[in-house]
Amino acid sequence: MSEKITNEALNRLSASEFKNAAKRQVTVLLDNVRSLNNVGSVFRTADAFLIEKLILCGVTGTPPNKEIEKTALGATSTVSWEHSENTLAAVLALKADGVKVYAVEQAKHSLALNAFNYDGQKLALVFGNEVYGVEQEVIDACHGVIEIPQAGTKHSLNIAVSAGIVLWEVLKNTLEHRKEE
Amino acid sequence: MSEKITNEALNRLSASEFKNAAKRQVTVLLDNVRSLNNVGSVFRTADAFLIEKLILCGVTGTPPNKEIEKTALGATSTVSWEHSENTLAAVLALKADGVKVYAVEQAKHSLALNAFNYDGQKLALVFGNEVYGVEQEVIDACHGVIEIPQAGTKHSLNIAVSAGIVLWEVLKNTLEHRKEE
Repeated sequence: MSEKITNEALNRLSASEFKNAAKRQVTVLLDNVRSLNNVGSVFRTADAFLIEKLILCGVTGTPPNKEIEKTALGATSTVSWEHSENTLAAVLALKADGVKVYAVEQAKHSLALNAFNYDGQKLALVFGNEVYGVEQEVIDACHGVIEIPQAGTKHSLNIAVSAGIVLWEVLKNTLEHRKEE
Repeated sequence: MSEKITNEALNRLSASEFKNAAKRQVTVLLDNVRSLNNVGSVFRTADAFLIEKLILCGVTGTPPNKEIEKTALGATSTVSWEHSENTLAAVLALKADGVKVYAVEQAKHSLALNAFNYDGQKLALVFGNEVYGVEQEVIDACHGVIEIPQAGTKHSLNIAVSAGIVLWEVLKNTLEHRKEE
């Protein structure tokens, strides 16, 4: 039978094990994300997929913050993060450090997410503001644009959902299925 | 250059085109989901991936509702949905109709999401309450359990993020990248 597994039996990492665990070499930048609920949700996803670091840019809210905590559920104390006043400056610094930087957007000449092959190299992904998306000058500075193909009437997915989908697609081959007890 | 695309130029479906479009044969059930924000976000994702129907079960909130609309952004008027008092009854009705039903959960003998091969047949996916997950009796009635492999300290992903990831993984081969103008 498919018996549900208790939280204890899941054998997740402790906070100190997390700090010492080998992270995926993936950094996520949030470019002026307005919703604290979305920021918290991205923290939670970043924890689940063991990413390297979150860079919270511009007006994006930062911990400690009660609203962020409502959706982060403690992930603000496990996931490494920093604040950067300026998204473009943060992107340029990552590029100077040899990181490949992609914006997640709807843009001309974008790469469909399912055509993106992650080679395990240092990667950064930029997600944008709920209304305006990633700033054009930031997109222009990136190595490329990744787009999630969509079929409906709306113009985009929620930013926390987009981050979940893109991080899953990029990292899924690095995630091991939980061992049965 | 990777110029951003305006909402108009995205050429998304109109509401009436959406109603007439061939949907993916995928139904999503929400089993007693508490957060209206999560319900709205699932509507928005269901629109983006053109799924067949949402079944809102038990205490899961239903439209019209201002809190749902904040994250659905209009998708409540495009996506087909119905309410069911009882999740188990809804699952049994789908099975009687020849639909394969999978719970998305952490459970023994679950199938890792990346090992799940969608064959294009009628499929239903059950997502559970934020704290309690999918009820055990519902899991027991399903054909199987799909689990998203995770590596961090938290016990699960947000339900709206999980729905985005699973629907993406199941449907991505059916989604066409937007044609360049």
